[in-house]
Amino acid sequence: MQKSVEENEAVVLIDEKGTRIPLIVKDKNLRIKRLGIYNPKELIGKKYYEKIEIGNRKFMIFIPSIFDKISAIERKAQIILPKDGLFIIYYCDIKSGDRIVEGGSGSGALTMLLAHFVKPKGRVISYEMRDDFAKVAQRNLENAGLNEYIGIKKGDITSKIDEKDVDAVVLDVPNPWDVVQNAYKALKLGGHLACYSPSMNQVEKTVKEMRMSSFFGIKTLETIQREMVVGEMGMRPSFESLGHTGYVTFGRKIK
Amino acid sequence: MQKSVEENEAVVLIDEKGTRIPLIVKDKNLRIKRLGIYNPKELIGKKYYEKIEIGNRKFMIFIPSIFDKISAIERKAQIILPKDGLFIIYYCDIKSGDRIVEGGSGSGALTMLLAHFVKPKGRVISYEMRDDFAKVAQRNLENAGLNEYIGIKKGDITSKIDEKDVDAVVLDVPNPWDVVQNAYKALKLGGHLACYSPSMNQVEKTVKEMRMSSFFGIKTLETIQREMVVGEMGMRPSFESLGHTGYVTFGRKIK
Amino acid sequence: MQKSVEENEAVVLIDEKGTRIPLIVKDKNLRIKRLGIYNPKELIGKKYYEKIEIGNRKFMIFIPSIFDKISAIERKAQIILPKDGLFIIYYCDIKSGDRIVEGGSGSGALTMLLAHFVKPKGRVISYEMRDDFAKVAQRNLENAGLNEYIGIKKGDITSKIDEKDVDAVVLDVPNPWDVVQNAYKALKLGGHLACYSPSMNQVEKTVKEMRMSSFFGIKTLETIQREMVVGEMGMRPSFESLGHTGYVTFGRKIK
Amino acid sequence: MQKSVEENEAVVLIDEKGTRIPLIVKDKNLRIKRLGIYNPKELIGKKYYEKIEIGNRKFMIFIPSIFDKISAIERKAQIILPKDGLFIIYYCDIKSGDRIVEGGSGSGALTMLLAHFVKPKGRVISYEMRDDFAKVAQRNLENAGLNEYIGIKKGDITSKIDEKDVDAVVLDVPNPWDVVQNAYKALKLGGHLACYSPSMNQVEKTVKEMRMSSFFGIKTLETIQREMVVGEMGMRPSFESLGHTGYVTFGRKIK
Repeated sequence: MQKSVEENEAVVLIDEKGTRIPLIVKDKNLRIKRLGIYNPKELIGKKYYEKIEIGNRKFMIFIPSIFDKISAIERKAQIILPKDGLFIIYYCDIKSGDRIVEGGSGSGALTMLLAHFVKPKGRVISYEMRDDFAKVAQRNLENAGLNEYIGIKKGDITSKIDEKDVDAVVLDVPNPWDVVQNAYKALKLGGHLACYSPSMNQVEKTVKEMRMSSFFGIKTLETIQREMVVGEMGMRPSFESLGHTGYVTFGRKIK
Repeated sequence: MQKSVEENEAVVLIDEKGTRIPLIVKDKNLRIKRLGIYNPKELIGKKYYEKIEIGNRKFMIFIPSIFDKISAIERKAQIILPKDGLFIIYYCDIKSGDRIVEGGSGSGALTMLLAHFVKPKGRVISYEMRDDFAKVAQRNLENAGLNEYIGIKKGDITSKIDEKDVDAVVLDVPNPWDVVQNAYKALKLGGHLACYSPSMNQVEKTVKEMRMSSFFGIKTLETIQREMVVGEMGMRPSFESLGHTGYVTFGRKIK
Repeated sequence: MQKSVEENEAVVLIDEKGTRIPLIVKDKNLRIKRLGIYNPKELIGKKYYEKIEIGNRKFMIFIPSIFDKISAIERKAQIILPKDGLFIIYYCDIKSGDRIVEGGSGSGALTMLLAHFVKPKGRVISYEMRDDFAKVAQRNLENAGLNEYIGIKKGDITSKIDEKDVDAVVLDVPNPWDVVQNAYKALKLGGHLACYSPSMNQVEKTVKEMRMSSFFGIKTLETIQREMVVGEMGMRPSFESLGHTGYVTFGRKIK
Repeated sequence: MQKSVEENEAVVLIDEKGTRIPLIVKDKNLRIKRLGIYNPKELIGKKYYEKIEIGNRKFMIFIPSIFDKISAIERKAQIILPKDGLFIIYYCDIKSGDRIVEGGSGSGALTMLLAHFVKPKGRVISYEMRDDFAKVAQRNLENAGLNEYIGIKKGDITSKIDEKDVDAVVLDVPNPWDVVQNAYKALKLGGHLACYSPSMNQVEKTVKEMRMSSFFGIKTLETIQREMVVGEMGMRPSFESLGHTGYVTFGRKIK
């Protein structure tokens, strides 16, 4: 049987060009980018995965996947792409129930990925110094229906981590090496540290600092991803960009 | 407080070279590769994340992460690497509670990744035609403590899928295009199909077949991953291999 | 002793942003992009590799390297980049004195690279059907001082190759497989065929056709190149694009 | 008309597996790897590009291309691959007639590529400290018929470069930054410096040193190359290795 939209659900509208508009089905008139003033409650009762019209534009309503949610975010800072974030999930063994410390929040793209995998019982505590970033991250997480699993905390993760016995610490800061010792203290035994850095020198300093603390299995990865295009002329890799994003370094706290 | 090993836990022994031996702490003398005859119950009471000796070899006992589990598997067939499998998790929105159909099981590496993300309530139904593969996959999943979330089913997924309303169908077969229509029938509305294929022609035929069925957001990705080495001479990408594995194609069932 | 500019030399002016203006030092007032009306003979006597002013803009005068020449071309069609063209030089063993057939000319970027390596005694015969492309290619080769080594020929290389006993045939056409037999006839024994194609299907059809003719050592390569950036924050790969261009397929005529 | 082998020619025998045996057709019985004792003069009069038998093994005789020559070399040290060396040719504008200083020679693979492009009037002066490397490089260049264009010089390029006004200096040493100033002195105005280094830290130190000297257009490239395989199952990138080799840094001497 085909599901219809109900109140309070998180949905995503996808138009013919693949543009995604994330919404929570609650009664308030919103000014929505690309849609104008709109009351999401008008969606109640409409069928998922079928074409509908809003104004004179065509959409489908999707139950948003994590891919839909992250594709739809408003970007303030450069985000950590899923291509890199997924390896943080994997090598940090992030799973339902985990307690994660992240810093900083940025636009909340990685926060969203972390929240998605720790829910419903786990939590992400995300440090962010800048109010404008915190606000965008918060709004993105609300639109995705993931805000109850996170707490954005104003503060500088490079100076202090309040939490103890956390499952993982995930860093996207310019100077991760300065956080290594505090991360060690905040982690439970066997817990994971991940550091995302665009430059090699950041990686090198971080790895050296992790070696001096008791981290095991230190490993740095670079991931390159290309989309393949299947068209009239046959199949080929995309002509579009595939530039560098960042390296991710991992290690696990031992005694 | 530091955790000690208890009965029935899944653990992994890691030696100084990083070799991983996965064990379930149950009373039976096992012939274990690299260890000889050994009774895992001798581990009870030992501390995690500290050095211990077995025979005259040094190990640490780890609560196995999903990375430890997959690194430790016995390989019979070529496996789908996490570098590719993680994008199946992401683009198929695989999460706790999902019901997934997979075919074939191979050595069970991808089965393990799927089981890890759907547990505790979700299930993976994995089709495999060859008894020798099914046996290895089963053993790998048992050693990883993940067997209760999967069912290996003798059968050819290219001819029939028994299940209905599943969240995702994940294929690693030579002819995924022949399964597209049956996958469509087995999927719930909004459900995801993922096909892993080493060659471009397989991708092309599959994409064309998916376009003729009602799949939305069809996308093919290639992922290249390199390890970075930090050593005396500085940092550089690994000299070791980074050859091709496969392309992964995704799509989502719509009306 | 430091060289000064002399009449009839090919030079390149490089400004502070790295923009390159290629010129031949001959007496005529030219309308030059980014420079306005200018008489190149004013450069006579000026020192190479020192800063000079033209109008109120600063330049250095360089004896143009092949890199300078190709960087300075006017682009009408998508060009074959040196990253791909250099492997055509290498695998086709292109060297001083060779006679090469090319089709089509496009903007002349590959023609230029070929001319550079066959000069002074060798020749490139370049087939081009479109007058607008032929005109741009001709102008680019003149500005680079390489036009005496090439002949652009109006015609469709896919229907006919007039030349015999050539050292190499180099193709950038949508249907290289249709040219394989004519290329075989045009080549001397031991001569080389190279085909540049963006899509895999083009490569596959071409390779199959080359296998049916007597080509030896058939090989297809893809080359990915990244620029590394050394800056304040350390060293990293460029964030800029590195998309797909094309595959190059090689083979050598045997009996 | 089909060419036959003549005395003193450099040839390469290629067997069915693609193994290459380079020979000079001169009268002496040689112990040749994979062939036993053999007198290359027996090849005189045989046709090129046709199958012949030596002992009971099948070969074809090829006029060796630069690819054949480099593929056939004996490797003592890790070589600079053509995938990297070709960009040295291009960005250093290496052409017929150039005088190049290289250090060190290693197994002579890059020396061979340089000699190939500067001949017949140009010269490569190659510094090598180790006698065993110098001997292998010399033998490789002789087998390739390229030894008359090079001079291997015993000495440490990091301490002194005797030559003046050279067109390019090409370095494959662990500490290229220590050679930058001497390279500057050895180069003619407008001349090119290229440094090959496996690690990022080497690149960074070298780039900084080049910026302090007067080098223009400093640029560092990394090149990744994959072979594509066309087989029964369709086309795909090779499963084989594509690990890291090195970065190449370029700059041009200005006033």
